[in-house]
Amino acid sequence: VLAGGVSGLFVLGTTGEAPGLSHALRCELIERAGEQIAGRVPMLVGITDTSQAESLQIAEHAADCGAAAVVLAPPYYFPAGQQELWEHVERLVVELPLPLVLYNMPSHTKLSFEPETIRRAIDRPEIVGLKDSSGQMVYFHKVARLAAARPDFSLLVGPEELLAEAVLLGAHGGVCGGANLEPRLYVELHQAAAAGRLADVRRLHARVMDIATSVYGVRAGGSAVIGGLKCALSLLGICSDLPAEPFSAFGSAERREMAARLAELGLEPVRSTEY
Amino acid sequence: VLAGGVSGLFVLGTTGEAPGLSHALRCELIERAGEQIAGRVPMLVGITDTSQAESLQIAEHAADCGAAAVVLAPPYYFPAGQQELWEHVERLVVELPLPLVLYNMPSHTKLSFEPETIRRAIDRPEIVGLKDSSGQMVYFHKVARLAAARPDFSLLVGPEELLAEAVLLGAHGGVCGGANLEPRLYVELHQAAAAGRLADVRRLHARVMDIATSVYGVRAGGSAVIGGLKCALSLLGICSDLPAEPFSAFGSAERREMAARLAELGLEPVRSTEY
Amino acid sequence: VLAGGVSGLFVLGTTGEAPGLSHALRCELIERAGEQIAGRVPMLVGITDTSQAESLQIAEHAADCGAAAVVLAPPYYFPAGQQELWEHVERLVVELPLPLVLYNMPSHTKLSFEPETIRRAIDRPEIVGLKDSSGQMVYFHKVARLAAARPDFSLLVGPEELLAEAVLLGAHGGVCGGANLEPRLYVELHQAAAAGRLADVRRLHARVMDIATSVYGVRAGGSAVIGGLKCALSLLGICSDLPAEPFSAFGSAERREMAARLAELGLEPVRSTEY
Amino acid sequence: VLAGGVSGLFVLGTTGEAPGLSHALRCELIERAGEQIAGRVPMLVGITDTSQAESLQIAEHAADCGAAAVVLAPPYYFPAGQQELWEHVERLVVELPLPLVLYNMPSHTKLSFEPETIRRAIDRPEIVGLKDSSGQMVYFHKVARLAAARPDFSLLVGPEELLAEAVLLGAHGGVCGGANLEPRLYVELHQAAAAGRLADVRRLHARVMDIATSVYGVRAGGSAVIGGLKCALSLLGICSDLPAEPFSAFGSAERREMAARLAELGLEPVRSTEY
Repeated sequence: VLAGGVSGLFVLGTTGEAPGLSHALRCELIERAGEQIAGRVPMLVGITDTSQAESLQIAEHAADCGAAAVVLAPPYYFPAGQQELWEHVERLVVELPLPLVLYNMPSHTKLSFEPETIRRAIDRPEIVGLKDSSGQMVYFHKVARLAAARPDFSLLVGPEELLAEAVLLGAHGGVCGGANLEPRLYVELHQAAAAGRLADVRRLHARVMDIATSVYGVRAGGSAVIGGLKCALSLLGICSDLPAEPFSAFGSAERREMAARLAELGLEPVRSTEY
Repeated sequence: VLAGGVSGLFVLGTTGEAPGLSHALRCELIERAGEQIAGRVPMLVGITDTSQAESLQIAEHAADCGAAAVVLAPPYYFPAGQQELWEHVERLVVELPLPLVLYNMPSHTKLSFEPETIRRAIDRPEIVGLKDSSGQMVYFHKVARLAAARPDFSLLVGPEELLAEAVLLGAHGGVCGGANLEPRLYVELHQAAAAGRLADVRRLHARVMDIATSVYGVRAGGSAVIGGLKCALSLLGICSDLPAEPFSAFGSAERREMAARLAELGLEPVRSTEY
Repeated sequence: VLAGGVSGLFVLGTTGEAPGLSHALRCELIERAGEQIAGRVPMLVGITDTSQAESLQIAEHAADCGAAAVVLAPPYYFPAGQQELWEHVERLVVELPLPLVLYNMPSHTKLSFEPETIRRAIDRPEIVGLKDSSGQMVYFHKVARLAAARPDFSLLVGPEELLAEAVLLGAHGGVCGGANLEPRLYVELHQAAAAGRLADVRRLHARVMDIATSVYGVRAGGSAVIGGLKCALSLLGICSDLPAEPFSAFGSAERREMAARLAELGLEPVRSTEY
Repeated sequence: VLAGGVSGLFVLGTTGEAPGLSHALRCELIERAGEQIAGRVPMLVGITDTSQAESLQIAEHAADCGAAAVVLAPPYYFPAGQQELWEHVERLVVELPLPLVLYNMPSHTKLSFEPETIRRAIDRPEIVGLKDSSGQMVYFHKVARLAAARPDFSLLVGPEELLAEAVLLGAHGGVCGGANLEPRLYVELHQAAAAGRLADVRRLHARVMDIATSVYGVRAGGSAVIGGLKCALSLLGICSDLPAEPFSAFGSAERREMAARLAELGLEPVRSTEY
């Protein structure tokens, strides 16, 4: 991923399966990622947890391991309202050793950071950005309009299928699961969109759609993306295909289907010397 | 609660705010509850967590502290399907040191144990019951029909407003948040329903509805129940009103309103010698 | 159905597929039902429509055909709030030629009559009842508590699986789709529950659950109930199995499965002289 | 609107409040719109209804009044599955006197045309386009990828906040509620996006966001858009502010707030000679 030219790394997000990992494993992952990155790009670390005390411990560890910021999605068991959500963030933010990026992820948390809450966040210097994975571009444009008031506030988009338009219309970047597979594609799409090279944007966006449709479409249901991505990475020789609970690795029929799709996409196993 | 005559105690459920507590605090709570209960009634311990490794650690601790069973709601971040959910339970159950009670809680987990999954669970001797907090009595009757095939399978209902009908039509008991406030009422309602004394059931059910409507109706939104219950318990001198994150204690206006409602219900502060 | 001893007939409800019928057909159905019933029991007529003008026309026709009351679910295309919903009902009710029964059906309308709106409805003499098909018994008990203030307000429950408990705890009756199949069963369950004969209630409720689980479980998805019921009625020689758009009749495999289930339930074709 | 340079007119859509109008009024509206348009641009007519017979009657009338195509959203009372939805469309399409445009509007219909259903629709020559009002751009890109296989298939986007990106990445146009207010803005944005003039796109998109945020943000809830738009149109002297049931016109406080916002946006009453 680093060789692909990414501007930063977000570890312990949703594709990183953070909520499925033990706290000890999350800490080990932060350590090892910090060592590998070695300051070449900023490392962002997810601290989302249903327990604030646990979130704070992970944040402390992230600070010790050289993270640039921590990332927080809303609480995802108890159904808080917006005022409660904001007060919760306010109580947390003063305890954090690092700047905070908010992470809007309603499909998994049931709860959004609504535009009015983002307006408040923009007034807090400790909060330095938002990753929006809602897939709701009307929402995105509303918060982009608010974020324009603060030039150092980073606006990132989650679903890679939306990277093109988000960057064309105001986002600073994206956090793309597919960039684990072919990082240079997403880097190039980001650059083309930021530079306003529309023909390139359309060509690269079309390939992003091809990859997303193929790789995330082998299996139906909630494990389509994580399971598909891990299966593909495993076939390319990059990592194991074993997801965390409650998911499980693709079976042999799904694996064969994925191999055929990767071949059609021209994605081939990485030679060991490359990474 | 013990003095009120309950048949068992379920610690670290939703009203117990388990997901909002640090793992260390969950463990301390298990220890202290185990010591206080001292085997007088069975202790059930919630092990619901997004990480299976953490669930297992809590289960081990619960076994060490004398729990009778552990209780598991579905994973609540990643959206699993029913087949994945069942395989996840199957992988977990063979590792557990104690019998397992399933906990259906879709308002908080987004995911239900569907009747077909309950049918499979009933075939596994390690799984000894279900607490259904869905509030969906059509669902409840479907699983009750399945559970009838295994006499030692315990069927418990969550919302206290449904205790009467659930027990009249097949449940073995309930896990009632309001029983923290007036345990004897819920014990008596359970007994009346189990014995088929309909006039008593109607009278006691009406009081349960009065309490639920009053105590959980001061505040709107997702913290209505937990916040309301803790505020009431605090006014009665039983425990602090501070909920875990992301919620916060009731303000003074809400507290005054609650005090007026408790007075109307005839609920008065407990004298310290009583507990 | 009349021979089965029912206390009333509700035509043009959900199982009656009213929204799928043309307005001309709805009017014909009201006429023919009115003629057949001939005043033996009260006829209730559904006027639910996205257009208030159309609702009023159906209501006028119902009055002309001898209906006792009309039944209205919330608007089901535009997402109104509770205040809007109530004002909408208030504007309608003064134009109606007949008393109004509200119909809570959130699975199909997306919108509920919340308890506070029911409280307002209870203060209006033109509104004489509520049919609750939400399947949410906590909601039901809340509105039953409010309705107790007005003895002439009828409280009916929708899902037949909930008839037993609703009547045991305060409902006046139910509107049961399955009563098209075996009306006497539902009449007897209602009588047993109203009289507090618990052993009979449990026995009859068990048969209701057997029928619902069997007949509505042949097909999955949104046409399970209507499609299943019509297929069963057709096999019993009572009516055609053709549902209105967007649904379609069961295929031959589903039909064979249904026939086997009906045989197991002991449901046999009606001889033509019986009805 | 015609003077603003639009490429076509869609009457009896959601902003047109079709489901709230009587059938007679819908027919009158088609006639009068057809007369006013007089063939200058294509007229599309919404035939969405819960009754297929009613849909067909409106379609016949639309054909008689010179419509170019009819537009159909999924059934919105009974919850059909995708296979049922598709078969329903297939049965309808052979009866229609005009080409059909599908209308994806899940917020109001609860049901989407899923990509696989769109794939089937693209194979039917009678179906000539899709208006996607889901607001889900990941979905939009998936169907755009499919629609690329058939050059004469029109892809239109609903929410005006998404017009820029949709046209930049493959849509042929949009159906924008705000174009009732300031049609030329949306026409210019469409042209800029189709021509790839990014600086213009960003400027015009920013104004679209200003209008949408202001005009649709006076009131919260489900009537925010329709109520806001009608209030604004009324203040500009274009039409009455009375919406169809179940909504009601803005009150005086909301009206004053809207007037202030329109002034800030530089939107002034239309002189009567202009239209």
